[in-house]
Order: sequence, then C-alpha cells, then structure tokens
Amino acid sequence: MDILKTEALLRLCATLVFVLAACLDRFDTQTKFIIFLERKITFKDLKALQALVYAAFGAAGYNLLQLSRCIFFISCFHGNLSKRSYRYLAWVCYLLDQVVVYLTFATNSAAIEQSMLVVTGMKEFQWTKWCNKYTRFCFQIGGAIFCCYVACCLMAFTTFVSAFNLFRLYSPNKFLRVKNT
Amino acid sequence: MDILKTEALLRLCATLVFVLAACLDRFDTQTKFIIFLERKITFKDLKALQALVYAAFGAAGYNLLQLSRCIFFISCFHGNLSKRSYRYLAWVCYLLDQVVVYLTFATNSAAIEQSMLVVTGMKEFQWTKWCNKYTRFCFQIGGAIFCCYVACCLMAFTTFVSAFNLFRLYSPNKFLRVKNT
Repeated sequence: MDILKTEALLRLCATLVFVLAACLDRFDTQTKFIIFLERKITFKDLKALQALVYAAFGAAGYNLLQLSRCIFFISCFHGNLSKRSYRYLAWVCYLLDQVVVYLTFATNSAAIEQSMLVVTGMKEFQWTKWCNKYTRFCFQIGGAIFCCYVACCLMAFTTFVSAFNLFRLYSPNKFLRVKNT
Repeated sequence: MDILKTEALLRLCATLVFVLAACLDRFDTQTKFIIFLERKITFKDLKALQALVYAAFGAAGYNLLQLSRCIFFISCFHGNLSKRSYRYLAWVCYLLDQVVVYLTFATNSAAIEQSMLVVTGMKEFQWTKWCNKYTRFCFQIGGAIFCCYVACCLMAFTTFVSAFNLFRLYSPNKFLRVKNT
C-alpha cells in the first residue's frame, strides 16, 4: 500500500502546483502608457501562455481524477484488486500519464521559448523586446513557468511510479509475459 | 533476446532520423535581397534552431552508444549477464533515456514555437513575419522539426522498453523489492 500512498501524495502536490501555475498565468495583467496609447497586456497576447493555461488546468484536472482513484483504492480495496483488471488499469494509467507529461512539458518549453524572446527581443528580425516595459507582468509569468516546471518534474516521478506499477507485473525473462504469483 | 533486438532496431532508427534532422537544420541557408541589402539567413539566426542542432546530434550520439551496447550484448553475452550488474545497468539506461527524451522533446517544442512565430509574426508586439520572404528555408526547417518529432516518438518507445527492462526485475507485491527467479 505504500506505493499507492506515494502516488497519491505526488499527484496531490502536482495538482496544487499546476493550479497555482495556471492561476498565476491566467490572472496576470498589466496596463501601461506607451507614447500616447494606454496598452493592456494579458496572457492572451502570447499564444504559448494561453496554451500553458489550458495545459496546466487540464493536467491539474487529470491529476485530481487520478488522485481520487488512488484514494478510492486505498479506502475500498486495500490493494486487493483482481490481477487481471489491475493490469488493464495499470496500462491505462501508464499511457495516460505519458501523454499528459509529454504534452505539459512541450507546452511549458514553448512558453519558456516565447517568453525568452519577449525578454531578449531579436535584432536580426527587428523584433523588439517588451519586458523592460512590462516588468511586473514578466516576473509573474516567470513564476508561472517555474511552477509549471516543478509540476512537470512531479509528474515525471509519477510516471516513474506508474511504470513501476505496470511492468513489475511482467516476467523478468520473457517479453510481455505475465508473471504468476 | 527478442527484446534486445527490438531495442537495437528502435535505437538504430532513432539515430538515423536524428542525424537527418540535424543535417536538414544545420545546412539550411538562404540568401535574398531585401530592399537594398543582401541578407543571408541560417540556422544561427534562431536560437531555438541552433539548440535543436546540438540536441539532435547529441541524441543521435547517445543512441549510437546505446546501440553498440545492444549489439555487444547480443553478440557476446546472449543475455546471460549476472542479475545484479544487469539491474544497475537497467537503472542507468532507464534514467539516461528519460533525460535524453525529455531534453530533445523540450528543444523540439521550443523550435516549433519559435518557427511558428517566424511563420505568423505577432501583430501585438509589432513583430513582422519572415517566412513569406524565406520560403525554401522555412520548408526545410519544417522538415527538420518533423524528423525530430518522429525521432522523439521513437525515443519514447525506447524508454518504454527500458522501463520494461528495469521494472520487470522487481517484485509485483512489495515496493522496490527485487524478485528471486
């Protein structure tokens, strides 16, 4: 049962950090006068940040579902599921975990990349930098990306646990042959 | 032994596709007259593309090393390694695979994101698009990113195999307890 509790804890942390990241990103806004115009900047101005909000909320929801599954198993079955149905479930969890961790990781990398462009600008393409004008906005986005990165690391540990849960059911000598225990 | 051959095949394909992606990216260049100046564009103009070249060559090298390990095992040991040393090796392979697949995936996502900006531009920030001027260059970069994406999928399958190789050595009932077989 220790492994279920470890998984539940990891998923709880991941959910909280993803929600924090999504909120930091979603509610980040700053208004400034530039020359004659008042300009408001929000997360919607950068497509990667918009994608990050959706990805973080999605990943938080997924982890919440998985967390409730863990709690259900701990409280009801005490780990005594039939081997067969357990194996199918382990496969589903493993594959879903992989998909979610790769998607959130990709979205986060894209957001980092786009944010770096906003921070540094790009001379060759005559793209000007914007972060010297919207400093507070940029720091908050930085915080959101950092949180999302932490959450991705937590998810990576979770996939480690779910891979362990799945593959320990198989024979150590034959490929994809189930063990009899 | 089937599993070793599967792994070797996956790693061979991943190596080839990574090398193809890196070369497509590295040797992509286009020169054009813009207004009065002749401007040459290469992979060095976009930092994400530069990172992609290094990441793809690095990943190809890593897969080549792992491939030679697979071939060495197939030809010399016929899979008869001592359980203890095999377990340590399985851990090393699993962890290295995870690091490499996440790094290449992140670099590729960043490159996609930056390339999309070059294709679409960004009105809000007065960033102009450039792909209407350097069409051939952009198509070749698109090909490189596609190849890198295929290679990442191959690497994801490889990590699946290395996770299987590692965790099947463990007991199905106790957490991180080695099986006796």
